[in-house]
Amino acid sequence: MLKDVELAKAYRLLNHGPTVLVSSAAAGKRNVMAAAWAMPLDFDPPKVLVVIDKSTYTRELMEASGEFILNVPCRAQAAQVVRVGSESGRDEDKFAASGLQEALAQKLAAPRVAGCIAYLECKIVPEPHNQQRYDLFIGEVVAAQADEDLFSAGHWHFDDDPAKRSLHYIAGGAFFATGEAFSVA
Amino acid sequence: MLKDVELAKAYRLLNHGPTVLVSSAAAGKRNVMAAAWAMPLDFDPPKVLVVIDKSTYTRELMEASGEFILNVPCRAQAAQVVRVGSESGRDEDKFAASGLQEALAQKLAAPRVAGCIAYLECKIVPEPHNQQRYDLFIGEVVAAQADEDLFSAGHWHFDDDPAKRSLHYIAGGAFFATGEAFSVA
Repeated sequence: MLKDVELAKAYRLLNHGPTVLVSSAAAGKRNVMAAAWAMPLDFDPPKVLVVIDKSTYTRELMEASGEFILNVPCRAQAAQVVRVGSESGRDEDKFAASGLQEALAQKLAAPRVAGCIAYLECKIVPEPHNQQRYDLFIGEVVAAQADEDLFSAGHWHFDDDPAKRSLHYIAGGAFFATGEAFSVA
Repeated sequence: MLKDVELAKAYRLLNHGPTVLVSSAAAGKRNVMAAAWAMPLDFDPPKVLVVIDKSTYTRELMEASGEFILNVPCRAQAAQVVRVGSESGRDEDKFAASGLQEALAQKLAAPRVAGCIAYLECKIVPEPHNQQRYDLFIGEVVAAQADEDLFSAGHWHFDDDPAKRSLHYIAGGAFFATGEAFSVA
């Protein structure tokens, strides 16, 4: 079951560096792509960074709509993450081609990717120099939700189900799952 | 044993989202701090992003020297990572206070943190607007090395020694270790 995450704690969803799916839509078209280069930028109001190459269809939809969603996928979705990271949405509808389903967002027109373990809905903070020169986008998080079995009281709890762990992409289809939780004083 | 990492593959050291230590020096002073908000920005020449708050002593040293090092610490160093993430180097020498040792860098005057599993030596690409408005720094990676037992042929190999796994910080002293490696076609 999804539960709202307090916006000032939304950075905790990305703080451990998981690979994300970026979903977007404009003018009746939708797309989803994988991105390893996403992270928090600020706490409150929460902002995130994501690198989106100029060649991508996602970039076109993001620039047309001014918004995007960072979806945090889990290990059960790893094959689909690789697939939507290696094909272009210009050639086919990547939701349909990958078997990923869309779900309604809370505050944006962009679709969420169903079955993910967390969502950060973002409005682009326009920074044309960063976008043009570095393919770097800043988003302000306007809504955040997570699977309440996996994220509560501001912390992830991945111990029970290995298939629900978040992902850390390397290259060539190789990942690490998020590993053992531990604390130091 | 440390081995050079081809610069075009340096992004692989950070692609899975590990927490880093940022080391810096200027005018005879040195410092080290923890940062969860660091990631690759570009492949070749390799660039990285790191968020460094205006209140930090590291920021002062980075701006004075134009350089910094991203050190990738391992689980054996987790307590020290928390310590250098929660104290200021203005009040004390954090290397000495935490028991971290410095090591010589290859191309920079800034010190490395000894015992880390990878190093990315970076020159700041000046972007005053990003630095001022978002506390966001861009570095070009001018040298990269990793422990050859843990990183070879462009991939991390963490299976043998749990104490040498990289770290993913959450908050309040809580981490995840980098977890199980797996591949999908």
